[in-house]
Amino acid sequence: MITSVNNDRVRKVVTYIQKSKARREDDVFVIEGMKMLREVPVLQVREVYVTGRFVDKASEDDKEILWRYGAEEVSEDVMKKMADTQTPQGVLAVVSQYHYTEEEVLEGYNQGNEGAAPLLLVLENIQDPGNLGTMFRSGEGAGVTGVILSKGSADIYSPKVIRSTMGSIFRMPFIYVDNLPEMVKKLGDSGISTYAAHLKGKKNYDEFDYTKPTAFLIGNEGNGLTKETADAATDYVLIPMKGEVESMNAATSSAILTFEASRQRRS
Amino acid sequence: MITSVNNDRVRKVVTYIQKSKARREDDVFVIEGMKMLREVPVLQVREVYVTGRFVDKASEDDKEILWRYGAEEVSEDVMKKMADTQTPQGVLAVVSQYHYTEEEVLEGYNQGNEGAAPLLLVLENIQDPGNLGTMFRSGEGAGVTGVILSKGSADIYSPKVIRSTMGSIFRMPFIYVDNLPEMVKKLGDSGISTYAAHLKGKKNYDEFDYTKPTAFLIGNEGNGLTKETADAATDYVLIPMKGEVESMNAATSSAILTFEASRQRRS
Repeated sequence: MITSVNNDRVRKVVTYIQKSKARREDDVFVIEGMKMLREVPVLQVREVYVTGRFVDKASEDDKEILWRYGAEEVSEDVMKKMADTQTPQGVLAVVSQYHYTEEEVLEGYNQGNEGAAPLLLVLENIQDPGNLGTMFRSGEGAGVTGVILSKGSADIYSPKVIRSTMGSIFRMPFIYVDNLPEMVKKLGDSGISTYAAHLKGKKNYDEFDYTKPTAFLIGNEGNGLTKETADAATDYVLIPMKGEVESMNAATSSAILTFEASRQRRS
Repeated sequence: MITSVNNDRVRKVVTYIQKSKARREDDVFVIEGMKMLREVPVLQVREVYVTGRFVDKASEDDKEILWRYGAEEVSEDVMKKMADTQTPQGVLAVVSQYHYTEEEVLEGYNQGNEGAAPLLLVLENIQDPGNLGTMFRSGEGAGVTGVILSKGSADIYSPKVIRSTMGSIFRMPFIYVDNLPEMVKKLGDSGISTYAAHLKGKKNYDEFDYTKPTAFLIGNEGNGLTKETADAATDYVLIPMKGEVESMNAATSSAILTFEASRQRRS
């Protein structure tokens, strides 16, 4: 049992929680809570830490999982030091980062919808971790097959993003790209219609056919899409708004567009 | 100019920022930033505070607004003490709370859509301030005419909710009610179809007619709707989800449902 907050492994976990660079160097990220540990693919898991109190209250199934992963017991103080949340759930794991190829993202690797037309989210400089995680979660729910992020977007592996994905991080293929406008052109050339969510859109978002290969482009919370990226899109789509609302939250826009695609693909 | 963080008025503002009870007793809330000050109805405004640095950089229009409201200059330290945000915008106002009647909420007071069928959001025990504010904002965009909240919901006047509404708080009529199931029955009796967003829904949300008087019932982030409230609804509606997603963020569900109503009402 680890009882010292100065233990080397404990300090490592703290840097993984706090620093994008530390996560990248060691190719890991941290997940918290039993729900996440149940969902993470087994080969991703490197280390598991648990408090005695958590083990005492765990179900037999959960105890089995902890035993199989060789979970290391830590004191309450150590867990509090390691965890990102104010009230730690009592179990935490260091897991490997994902490395999808562009092909896997475009083809919907792992999404169990072989044969379905691609439905991609292309995210430019999304900054809010809650927004980013929510887009993964609602995206999976809508049948999104892959996510492409600009380099300027928030780090998907930050604890708050991971929490907001509610496990979608384990299932949704994604890549970060250096040159987003170029990628958007490439998608267009390969027969995927690219729709920029944009206030300058002239046609409403529900007037397009999303049963064909589709990508939705969503821009930064404050500034929207850059001109270069919007210009590279096949079309602008407008989410018409009533009242005096000027723009929609990025995660809200993403949900409205992807669930319209989901609706069309059902009917 | 106020330079002391111990000034009585400054301390009052701090309690308004921090305490729901203090806001309720004095019937006020606090807004921050010029965008909000531009949008708030003039008669709501009680006190405005601004830093010299903000005034120096303000546009002529904004200076005019500050002058009309008799804005009180405060030091940077005082603004930092009063503001809820880490990097204060430099202008802040104490404004009156709203008091809508049930009739105003049901009839869409102030929404400029007289004659349109009611489109209501009924929110039960929503806890996350960001979610609650986002529902007001996306709700206004979708043409929601009023919001009904259970007493157990977060305080609409907390600074984080206010920020997330992006000004919709000034335009969307709302009430808190003690007995939500009773209110849902009342809506039903008055000819408004009440749809509970529920995982037990058998029909997809896009199979109902929302051009008629409609209310969407959205439950707490973790637990969904209580049985009593769900039972009082006309119908359950399901947002069908792909992948392994078990539930949707409350604000996401709200946007998907209200924008489907908006789509139907446009076509």
